[in-house]
Amino acid sequence: MSISFHIDCTRGQGRTGRLFTPHAEIETPVFMPVGTVASVKGVPQDTLEELGAQIILGNTYHLYLRPGVSTVRKLGGLHGFMAWRRAILTDSGGFQVFSLNELRKVTEEGVTFRSHLDGSSHFFSPESAMEAQIGLGADIIMAFDECTEYPADAARARASMEMTARWAARSKKYFEEHKNEVPWNQGPGARGQGSEASVNLWPLTPDPSSTQSLFGIVQGGMDRALRKESAERTIEIGFPGYAIGGLSVGEPRELTREIVESTLEHLPKDQPRYLMGVGTPEEIVEYANLGVDMMDCVLPTRAARHGLLFTSEGKVSIKQARYAQDAGPLDANCGCRVCQRYSRAYLRHLYASNEVLAQVLNTIHNLSFYLDTMRRVRHSISLGEESHSF
Amino acid sequence: MSISFHIDCTRGQGRTGRLFTPHAEIETPVFMPVGTVASVKGVPQDTLEELGAQIILGNTYHLYLRPGVSTVRKLGGLHGFMAWRRAILTDSGGFQVFSLNELRKVTEEGVTFRSHLDGSSHFFSPESAMEAQIGLGADIIMAFDECTEYPADAARARASMEMTARWAARSKKYFEEHKNEVPWNQGPGARGQGSEASVNLWPLTPDPSSTQSLFGIVQGGMDRALRKESAERTIEIGFPGYAIGGLSVGEPRELTREIVESTLEHLPKDQPRYLMGVGTPEEIVEYANLGVDMMDCVLPTRAARHGLLFTSEGKVSIKQARYAQDAGPLDANCGCRVCQRYSRAYLRHLYASNEVLAQVLNTIHNLSFYLDTMRRVRHSISLGEESHSF
Repeated sequence: MSISFHIDCTRGQGRTGRLFTPHAEIETPVFMPVGTVASVKGVPQDTLEELGAQIILGNTYHLYLRPGVSTVRKLGGLHGFMAWRRAILTDSGGFQVFSLNELRKVTEEGVTFRSHLDGSSHFFSPESAMEAQIGLGADIIMAFDECTEYPADAARARASMEMTARWAARSKKYFEEHKNEVPWNQGPGARGQGSEASVNLWPLTPDPSSTQSLFGIVQGGMDRALRKESAERTIEIGFPGYAIGGLSVGEPRELTREIVESTLEHLPKDQPRYLMGVGTPEEIVEYANLGVDMMDCVLPTRAARHGLLFTSEGKVSIKQARYAQDAGPLDANCGCRVCQRYSRAYLRHLYASNEVLAQVLNTIHNLSFYLDTMRRVRHSISLGEESHSF
Repeated sequence: MSISFHIDCTRGQGRTGRLFTPHAEIETPVFMPVGTVASVKGVPQDTLEELGAQIILGNTYHLYLRPGVSTVRKLGGLHGFMAWRRAILTDSGGFQVFSLNELRKVTEEGVTFRSHLDGSSHFFSPESAMEAQIGLGADIIMAFDECTEYPADAARARASMEMTARWAARSKKYFEEHKNEVPWNQGPGARGQGSEASVNLWPLTPDPSSTQSLFGIVQGGMDRALRKESAERTIEIGFPGYAIGGLSVGEPRELTREIVESTLEHLPKDQPRYLMGVGTPEEIVEYANLGVDMMDCVLPTRAARHGLLFTSEGKVSIKQARYAQDAGPLDANCGCRVCQRYSRAYLRHLYASNEVLAQVLNTIHNLSFYLDTMRRVRHSISLGEESHSF
């Protein structure tokens, strides 16, 4: 078994469940911290474990460019490379190719793009994106899709959705033919050689007969009918889980919610549903209550680097002078190691002094807040209570 | 009792001991990580505790400029401000005023200097430097000295040494008259108000009748006779501990060692001896074996930020391409959390990708290496064995 999903409780549209992957059992709904280049920026892996992160996300586009898939594969895949025992999900690279590349060229075959690091030219197709993700060896990988821009006219949204559907079929075909090439399935040499000491490092092997799981992605822009059609076509191809992509691309939040809610109606109730790239603490509560099982977002980590902290009493911009002599904790209701130890005055000082510890502590707190938020949502769904978004 | 020092074992000139300060008992010889602006760059305080750091150093010059002494005092001194339970030592500000300020103006009264942050004009005298250090509230504070530049001619070295001696007397006088103003001695309001939650944060109070301890500093340039005279004049003023300053200012290492060795002969055997601003792993072993009890240096933390790592097999420049696929640990003989978990390939990737985690992990390892080195020195002195410097 490479993946299985059990729903434990439901309340309205929301549900709690457990997602079993080769490396970890994940309680859903789950928030997945983003570790773009195999690091959740500023946070050591043992701290992520303490925070209760059960699954993290890696970005295929970035990892493909640096350190490169072959290096990660040689080190045993992402799990061995970054010494992370729990689950990992990689995106397909599609979103970053579209968002970071103004000079990309899209054809039926795939996308030609330039590296944001050195300008070198590269090509992603459904097949090469699968090859990359198999080499990276995450537990869950994503079909290669085209993220439709916003706004897009009806013809463009349809054409884009249809190409995503064709790419989904190609993604699945390549994956099925190559899924046994996952690094953890490659025998004794799989987790890195080149050093006699490597055997001591990080024993990670899951069931060697297990493979990755490929999820499909629903596109269709902001058109409910197209979304429905995209869902139906993606389900027809058949995946163990489905994502809603192409949102949080500039549209108003009300529209995001409307599309999420209507798209969810067309996704199988007994399979995991992943909403990509959202959101604020309020939004992740809202979407979890609508029946989304998995979410990821750079917001908690990116905001932390800009001194924007999420608390039970709202957002705190820690750079403000009003906190310069504030001896209280950042969030009196938070049990994280930052709030248990440091004052707002100290966090403000670290930020104002441009100390690296500011990013470290701010990120730990924000992730703790997000993960706690999801814990509360799971708890309230399992109790049948309404969970409020602050 | 504000400080006491017990020597446990001696071997040749080297000795092991215990230094009791208001906040911690310190095993000597000790290496003190540098936390310039109330943060050992990139390392959370709980990690420093796990590494076994018993005392850390803060820089008065930097803290005086930002966040300012009054802020630190209001938050309970450095211990309360940075939530650090163990011991702290602050330097006098003299060294930084001399090394960071080309436009400083020195008179008998003190030093006028410009902030490296905003160019604003400031003045440090022995009295104001003591006032600042009392407000910061470290366990051990340092007399305000003039760090003689290298090279300096005989007349200049003598004049500078004599001014340091006069400043030492003024430092002691001010300190004796004001030592009861230390933040931990200031009653209920001492550790910060302004938030009803502050009481929960960090209970740190040592014996409220204890005070800080002021150490004297021996100067005298590279002249052994002047060093002897400086030691004698400083001892005559009378301090509970003595530092050797004015070294590592550009002189050859052999000369540093010669001055250290000859100066140590003139310092009281039963009091702690602190060599400021050294050194490499080899040097700290060497100086410990000469009878130095305390050392500090930015080298392990600064080198870590540049990818230079100290290991049992020598220095490793982790940025090198040769480590890109090296699955082995940074140092197979190191028990730190970095070497126990991550590969050289991963550390190299983090550095090459300019990830903040590179600085965090590199610094943790280098500090672990320095603190372990001192642990081994203490062990070998206590066993009466010769300890080798690699």
